[in-house]
Amino acid sequence: MPFSLTPKDSSFYPLFTASAQNLVAATDVLSEFIHDHARRPELAEQLRELEHVGDQSTHAIFRQLNSSFVTPFDREDIYKLASDLDDVMDFVEAAADLVILTGLGTLPAEMSQQTALLQRAAQTTAEAMPRLRTMKDLSSYWIEVNRIENEADRLYRRLLSRLYSGEFDALEILKLKEVADQLEEAADAFEHVANVVETITVKES
Amino acid sequence: MPFSLTPKDSSFYPLFTASAQNLVAATDVLSEFIHDHARRPELAEQLRELEHVGDQSTHAIFRQLNSSFVTPFDREDIYKLASDLDDVMDFVEAAADLVILTGLGTLPAEMSQQTALLQRAAQTTAEAMPRLRTMKDLSSYWIEVNRIENEADRLYRRLLSRLYSGEFDALEILKLKEVADQLEEAADAFEHVANVVETITVKES
Amino acid sequence: MPFSLTPKDSSFYPLFTASAQNLVAATDVLSEFIHDHARRPELAEQLRELEHVGDQSTHAIFRQLNSSFVTPFDREDIYKLASDLDDVMDFVEAAADLVILTGLGTLPAEMSQQTALLQRAAQTTAEAMPRLRTMKDLSSYWIEVNRIENEADRLYRRLLSRLYSGEFDALEILKLKEVADQLEEAADAFEHVANVVETITVKES
Repeated sequence: MPFSLTPKDSSFYPLFTASAQNLVAATDVLSEFIHDHARRPELAEQLRELEHVGDQSTHAIFRQLNSSFVTPFDREDIYKLASDLDDVMDFVEAAADLVILTGLGTLPAEMSQQTALLQRAAQTTAEAMPRLRTMKDLSSYWIEVNRIENEADRLYRRLLSRLYSGEFDALEILKLKEVADQLEEAADAFEHVANVVETITVKES
Repeated sequence: MPFSLTPKDSSFYPLFTASAQNLVAATDVLSEFIHDHARRPELAEQLRELEHVGDQSTHAIFRQLNSSFVTPFDREDIYKLASDLDDVMDFVEAAADLVILTGLGTLPAEMSQQTALLQRAAQTTAEAMPRLRTMKDLSSYWIEVNRIENEADRLYRRLLSRLYSGEFDALEILKLKEVADQLEEAADAFEHVANVVETITVKES
Repeated sequence: MPFSLTPKDSSFYPLFTASAQNLVAATDVLSEFIHDHARRPELAEQLRELEHVGDQSTHAIFRQLNSSFVTPFDREDIYKLASDLDDVMDFVEAAADLVILTGLGTLPAEMSQQTALLQRAAQTTAEAMPRLRTMKDLSSYWIEVNRIENEADRLYRRLLSRLYSGEFDALEILKLKEVADQLEEAADAFEHVANVVETITVKES
């Protein structure tokens, strides 16, 4: 690690926090979307808007990166952290869109549970982002997100087991899997965010 | 960034350009393949040959990397750029092969449109590769590829919407999705190439 | 590359070797699982235990990484190598679990062949890991794993071709693809491990 000759630029932290708070908002809207059949078109539109807001945060981080001489941690890691936060949003928005595209009605209870886990992952992430400034107490964050991802994985398999139990025909399975896979990918993407934070911490240690 | 004590090796640029031009050729063949039902076996064979040519470019880059003391940008980025260009080729070749493996006949119009976007992405990429030498005017390239990828994503969702509209049975949906997913992954892979170029530019700035 | 002021920590090598040997054990159990219908529940349980052992190796590597001042190669590469080895185990365990979740009975011969390739990839990887210490004779390893992955890819396509040949209905195809995709991803993940080793060698050269 080179010595910093100038104060490290601190303006990245609020941008990461804003990105993660946007995910809290998005996973909350997704939860309403899952449960409130009638309001789905309106809530999907809200998710598209939140995705747009997220894109703006991501590009603000990239612009900041391009104009900063000294960064608080490796440029590649800042880039990866911003991209991975962006990925979560893409999967959350896609999950809702696919419910509408496939014309699915009432969704299996496991999908509400998947969404509840995403809400928890988003909150944990949003609470951790400001701690990047001091690099303290971050291990509890990534341990919790890893735990959530393990739970999401078990839940996803329980859902698959149900999908193939004989209750659904091939067409319904195909449709439900489109959505379930996006929710599972969103949980994985939260873990990727946590992995970047862990990598940053390892480098700084 | 360390000072370069020797002139930076310039022989990477023609290799990247050759890789990207190979993608122009491959996406052009894919377009013929989609439209010209009768010539599919012959055109799939052409794609396998182009993939083989692509593999040789990729390995030429890796060999060059192993024998260069000083590289024009980070070794990891050269490695990643070559691998990501190679990935595009793999998805393009797989898309054609899966049409044949699944025995699909006439393909939905959305797949011609997906392929037209891949052709545009390939051309944009091949035009940008020589500009890696000066690192100038590259932002227009990655902005355009990101735009193409967004359009490809909307198109992919429109195709999914059609697949689940009731027009197709489960088996046909499965077959069409095998192909559609490869085309979508090819568009994503072009974006990954653009992301590496953006990362290289960020590091050099 | 900075000069090492202290002897490089050598305790990573046995940990990588242990991780890879665990994959030899897991792919051997998977092979029994594929063939011995009656013992599947018991063998799936053995795979879950091996996955747990693998997780412990992975975390031992991460802890070692956090407490080492000097590492034998880049921290990011150690992190990535451990994660990629862990990924292989996850796909192997998931393949078996999905056979049980989907209630599949006798599996197509191509899946035994996929599994035989995974066994070969695991053995090749386990034999190569101790050679990371001297960084010698590693190219034969990654060339062999790349060859195995190419063979696995051809086999996967042959399996897809059979799945869509008319022998299976949509529901059976869906179930068989769940498993086939995990086996294919395991082969890809072995290649990712080999790619990290190649990257490390390139950096050190």
